[in-house]
Amino acid sequence: MTNTKVTVLGLGAMGAALATALVRAGHPTTVWNRSPGKADALVALGATAATTPRDAVLASEVVVACLFDAASVHEVLDPVADLLAGRALVNVTTTSPDQSRGIAAWAAEHGVVYLDGGIMAVPHMIGQPGSSVLYSGSRTAFERYRPLLDLWGESAYFGEDAGVASLYDLALLAGMYVMFAGFLHGAAMVAGAGVSATEFAERAAPWLSAMTGGFAGFAAVVDGGDYAAPGQQSLEFSDLGDMVAAGAAQGISTEVVDVVQALIRRQVEAGHGKEGFARIYESIRNPV
Amino acid sequence: MTNTKVTVLGLGAMGAALATALVRAGHPTTVWNRSPGKADALVALGATAATTPRDAVLASEVVVACLFDAASVHEVLDPVADLLAGRALVNVTTTSPDQSRGIAAWAAEHGVVYLDGGIMAVPHMIGQPGSSVLYSGSRTAFERYRPLLDLWGESAYFGEDAGVASLYDLALLAGMYVMFAGFLHGAAMVAGAGVSATEFAERAAPWLSAMTGGFAGFAAVVDGGDYAAPGQQSLEFSDLGDMVAAGAAQGISTEVVDVVQALIRRQVEAGHGKEGFARIYESIRNPV
Ligand SMILES: NC(=O)c1ccc[n+]([C@@H]2O[C@H](COP(=O)([O-])OP(=O)(O)OC[C@H]3O[C@@H](n4cnc5c(N)ncnc54)[C@H](OP(=O)(O)O)[C@@H]3O)[C@@H](O)[C@H]2O)c1
Ligand SMILES: NC(=O)c1ccc[n+]([C@@H]2O[C@H](COP(=O)([O-])OP(=O)(O)OC[C@H]3O[C@@H](n4cnc5c(N)ncnc54)[C@H](OP(=O)(O)O)[C@@H]3O)[C@@H](O)[C@H]2O)c1
Repeated sequence: MTNTKVTVLGLGAMGAALATALVRAGHPTTVWNRSPGKADALVALGATAATTPRDAVLASEVVVACLFDAASVHEVLDPVADLLAGRALVNVTTTSPDQSRGIAAWAAEHGVVYLDGGIMAVPHMIGQPGSSVLYSGSRTAFERYRPLLDLWGESAYFGEDAGVASLYDLALLAGMYVMFAGFLHGAAMVAGAGVSATEFAERAAPWLSAMTGGFAGFAAVVDGGDYAAPGQQSLEFSDLGDMVAAGAAQGISTEVVDVVQALIRRQVEAGHGKEGFARIYESIRNPV
Repeated sequence: MTNTKVTVLGLGAMGAALATALVRAGHPTTVWNRSPGKADALVALGATAATTPRDAVLASEVVVACLFDAASVHEVLDPVADLLAGRALVNVTTTSPDQSRGIAAWAAEHGVVYLDGGIMAVPHMIGQPGSSVLYSGSRTAFERYRPLLDLWGESAYFGEDAGVASLYDLALLAGMYVMFAGFLHGAAMVAGAGVSATEFAERAAPWLSAMTGGFAGFAAVVDGGDYAAPGQQSLEFSDLGDMVAAGAAQGISTEVVDVVQALIRRQVEAGHGKEGFARIYESIRNPV
């Protein structure tokens, strides 16, 4: 498998990390970047630099695209679509679910085997524990090239719909951005009492990390659908009134916690106050 | 120190856990609960049951209150205020910052040494790694009784203002509830693609746990005040438009991510788009 020829298009921070892992594992690796100079370090490691996307595509059976956005993928690949026919395109550029489906349709039209990927790591984590990449699209490509993909991190496959990896990626990023906002809200709450954000972070990081242990329980309730099963913290008990009031008393915006309180209140007002907190999932699934 | 006599008022799930740790460590422990029967297990371990709050207070130099809310604390302690004079009251009942300050003022009036506590643990964690209790109020009491307090978990002290422990507690809980909402939002995003909440939790828990590693960096920027320092992900790059659109395309409510997008947009619109994501802290500190 390590003799699979592979091309990496795009040698930004992430593309370079992906290419480095491939070269180190012994794959004959061809690299291309729009602006010159970025291939040099990889060539020193043993990669071959191509001067055009055309030459880069012709060199390998697997073509990895790690560009900027969906538009840049089309810009680079549309002119070489016919050369890509019969090859596998693994596109790990961040794209929306609909953009991924659009690229998949374009690939199908041109006889290109398409696998869409979403990277859950920063460049220095590539190939290290904690790095994972989510894929959807061609199952054949995922299975055939899995040993290669596994060089970057844990590989997970979510089916033939090319948009699912992006959707999953966005769902995990949603969790992350919302958690960051919650952390910064907490830091703003204690700032007025003279607590630095750094001190708050030292306590908040292990606390929130430990509290991720609660996800599995919420998930079991959501999947089981029994929000009234015993052992759950009730929605009534979860009322965030004191938290909102304490934030307001500090003179800060309470919008970050207001939104959670609104999810809770909608369920309480619908008569579910004695049921479990996980029921706010229903507030999200069923917009007002 | 283990011969310090201590009384625990309130033997619910948490009060019983706190009292158990004290008895096990060898403290002469007196316990009281409003409804009968809850002291039995503790008496079997070696605690003494008191039949009235009056007898309970008279038995010890340290009185721990672990009741339901601020009103229940006043209900139990107002009638015995004079007996509490000269003793230390450690109140770990969940109260708001203003309620804590109110109880501290009441205590000062009656010559009671007051320490307010916020427990960052569930009952079975008491005395185990990961349990911590936040205190503010009397520094003398915190220092004198620290070995006793440390039996419950890591003890942290935040100064003489009795309201700060509650504020800190609420700030950490805010982070937690907001993170839970972000997790459930992510689960709702992938549900339409046939991904169960349980499967999503298996990936989201380690992912968000790892991402708490980012807090220290944000905090350093917030404390330093230089949102333009290099190496930060920009607010522009953090635009959540694709994430919001993907949620809307799934037919779910996007309010949980909308609020983060609004925090970002306010900073971008104020001309800070090239600065770091941590700047959403300013959106929170400065309400519109
Ligand atoms: N960095 C991360 O932590 C991370 C994590 C997960 C996913 N990703 C995704 O991975 C992809 C690459 O990220 P990165 O961190 O490597 O970004 P980067 O360092 O900014 O590099 C961007 C790359 O895209 C190329 N590019 C941009 N527009 C182009 C165009 N129109 N035609 C041809 N090439 C173009 C750039 O070429 P030039 O050198 O010529 O500008 C460069 O190689 C992005 O989609 C990103 O969202 C990154
Ligand atoms: N459990 C947790 O995970 C946790 C975590 C952090 C903080 N806390 C806080 O710890 C406190 C106790 O929680 P818990 O889990 O032990 O609750 P719990 O199991 O519901 O017990 C509540 C206790 O308060 C007593 N009580 C309620 N109203 C009273 C009144 N008017 N007069 C006298 N006693 C009264 C109850 O006595 P009866 O037996 O007579 O009803 C019982 O002993 C709460 O403030 C809670 O927020 C709990």
